[in-house]
Amino acid sequence: MFEQVQAAKERLKNYANVTPIMASRTLNRCISAEVYFKCENFQRIGAFKFRGAFNAICQLSEAQRSCGIITYSSGNHAQAVALVGQMLKVQTVIVMPNNAPATKRAATEEYGATIIEYDPEKKAREEVAQALKINHGYTMIPPFDHKDVIAGQGTAALELFEEIGNLDMLLVPCGGGGLLSGSAIAAKGMSPNCRTIGIEPELADDATRSFHTKKLHTIKNPLTIADGTRTPSLGKITFPLVLEYVDDMKTVSEEAIIEAVKFLFYRMKLVVEPSGALGLAAFDNNLKLLNKAIPAQYLPSTAKYNL
Amino acid sequence: MFEQVQAAKERLKNYANVTPIMASRTLNRCISAEVYFKCENFQRIGAFKFRGAFNAICQLSEAQRSCGIITYSSGNHAQAVALVGQMLKVQTVIVMPNNAPATKRAATEEYGATIIEYDPEKKAREEVAQALKINHGYTMIPPFDHKDVIAGQGTAALELFEEIGNLDMLLVPCGGGGLLSGSAIAAKGMSPNCRTIGIEPELADDATRSFHTKKLHTIKNPLTIADGTRTPSLGKITFPLVLEYVDDMKTVSEEAIIEAVKFLFYRMKLVVEPSGALGLAAFDNNLKLLNKAIPAQYLPSTAKYNL
Repeated sequence: MFEQVQAAKERLKNYANVTPIMASRTLNRCISAEVYFKCENFQRIGAFKFRGAFNAICQLSEAQRSCGIITYSSGNHAQAVALVGQMLKVQTVIVMPNNAPATKRAATEEYGATIIEYDPEKKAREEVAQALKINHGYTMIPPFDHKDVIAGQGTAALELFEEIGNLDMLLVPCGGGGLLSGSAIAAKGMSPNCRTIGIEPELADDATRSFHTKKLHTIKNPLTIADGTRTPSLGKITFPLVLEYVDDMKTVSEEAIIEAVKFLFYRMKLVVEPSGALGLAAFDNNLKLLNKAIPAQYLPSTAKYNL
Repeated sequence: MFEQVQAAKERLKNYANVTPIMASRTLNRCISAEVYFKCENFQRIGAFKFRGAFNAICQLSEAQRSCGIITYSSGNHAQAVALVGQMLKVQTVIVMPNNAPATKRAATEEYGATIIEYDPEKKAREEVAQALKINHGYTMIPPFDHKDVIAGQGTAALELFEEIGNLDMLLVPCGGGGLLSGSAIAAKGMSPNCRTIGIEPELADDATRSFHTKKLHTIKNPLTIADGTRTPSLGKITFPLVLEYVDDMKTVSEEAIIEAVKFLFYRMKLVVEPSGALGLAAFDNNLKLLNKAIPAQYLPSTAKYNL
């Protein structure tokens, strides 16, 4: 699997951004550790999802490309598939819930994708997409449960290890487990003693329960503000990979996620969506302390993240 | 003067951050140009002011250091002097208006500075600081009108040219003209055909008027949201430097500044204070077009910038 992450990195060269790695002296001093942030908010479309989508779509045959591709996603994966479709001149169809964030929908349409809406209260997105795929001959590029998507997502951690060297611990947000399993594979290949910890919102703790019980748990429409982690469960491919490569799973509270977003905004000048702040949220109590110095009237409304 | 900027760069090595340079494909496509952003929001204390303060204070004699230093500033220069004082173990006194942004005041106190408040409606900050300096033997580190401060500020542009090469145009925010004159000196040294343009808010256009009439104009407490440019005028040192090295001056509207802050937030995931967005604000109409795709309910309240 590690070779597939390395091969993905070659494919992404000149297409994906090699994102910067940031640090905060304030945080490091507070927790007596060195923490590095791999800034995938600066990736194309604003999230790591571009990596997996590109790595999967660029390997399709001419025949597959000419029929078009389909996916289901409420957010970043949709934008990623739409942008890659535009870059590689492949028609894209995105199945999106009718309550998807308007920013993400607008950005997806801007890249020329066709959006098919569905009601998440009535249907599962996979079913809607599957029916369209069969009727039209599209190729499905699922958001996480696909080996080329997983290998692509792993390239962010690969770049981190290449630049920083060995790490003691790697904290990775977990939704469907694509980024988490890809990152854990990269970690074992690059820094074998590094412990990879998956981080989930308490409100969407299906993967944590699945990891600890070794049985797949699911969750329905969890109300976490970390909308990138609202997936119902790990996948057929990601679950075994998480069990094999990930060392532990932890959950964080909604309050901790908000503290992390605030810290990134005020102290590090970074705009990071809640799902991207999960790793930092693990430092809950320290963040609360550090954020105390920010007077309340200057804090951003968190309402805008509560999509 | 260019040699002084180069010497400042050597002094700052291992103390200042070499800040990243970012770009936006969306912006470049829209205006058919290549634009590079030197991200001084990622500098220590969150602004370029660290560069000038460090370059000035690290050159003080032991005798001067032992007496302590003083400055007047409502914002980033205060934090910069306070942090450098902490790093070099020099006592710092900051004269600050009683309506200074609470975040900036809190950050300054955190670095161990003593803050002396004054009422900006009743007194000029320079007078308050001057009286304290004489009574206590402090050394004054003014926010812009000081050759070592100017040389330090010029190192940001120096790094930009070193990394990117020649540029056609360099857009630089202008308050008291420290960053502007330092940057223009660096530009002439590194990329002689580059035109350096100073950018000011329309509401605080004293330097633009001074530049065009070659006579020093002043302005009193301008109400621009770009609080870093609320200085009354260019200085005794910066005015002649601006006349000699700067190629042109332009003003931007408050609305354009807000569009620039929004674009940086939503499209580039960067938290940039209004004063730092002045260069981008020059692309006014293009930004409006690009920001249109962001639905209104997801726009940040600009109230929090209106300190």
